[in-house]
Amino acid sequence: MSIKARVLIRPKQGILDPQGIAVEQALPALGFEGVSNVRIGRLIELDVQDVSQLDAMCKKLLANPLIEDYEVIGPDDVGSPGDVAAKGPGT
Amino acid sequence: MSIKARVLIRPKQGILDPQGIAVEQALPALGFEGVSNVRIGRLIELDVQDVSQLDAMCKKLLANPLIEDYEVIGPDDVGSPGDVAAKGPGT
Repeated sequence: MSIKARVLIRPKQGILDPQGIAVEQALPALGFEGVSNVRIGRLIELDVQDVSQLDAMCKKLLANPLIEDYEVIGPDDVGSPGDVAAKGPGT
Repeated sequence: MSIKARVLIRPKQGILDPQGIAVEQALPALGFEGVSNVRIGRLIELDVQDVSQLDAMCKKLLANPLIEDYEVIGPDDVGSPGDVAAKGPGT
């Protein structure tokens, strides 16, 4: 049986995020003021049979632990988001 | 005062997601079996003064409504994830 899971990946604090800067600079031109600290990361949704593998998957393929933090959102919480099941190092 | 918000953006159902396919095919080679339906989207975290602007921001800049669904996660839920505050069309 497969379980739906969700992984959130974001640039670590202090790591330059050019995409986020681009968005932050574009928003005022479109009439949206008062937006700051825009950070852009990745959202990965997948069906897994063994949720305990997710942490290893993040370390080995999904995230770059040198520059990114990741957060695994547990199966119960996908669809109706709830508590965080596991957190990557340094989040 | 700024409020932390989070936007999840994912490819719409039926839209090809080459990144997701690449990840799905790479996982078995790394010893992770039983993973399917990998979809890769974007995670945007930002501080906003007016949360009601987020929906318009998604439509105008953050997401491409033709091929992407978006989901705004309310300020109360960022940090300690909880309910979904607002959902994009077709999610």
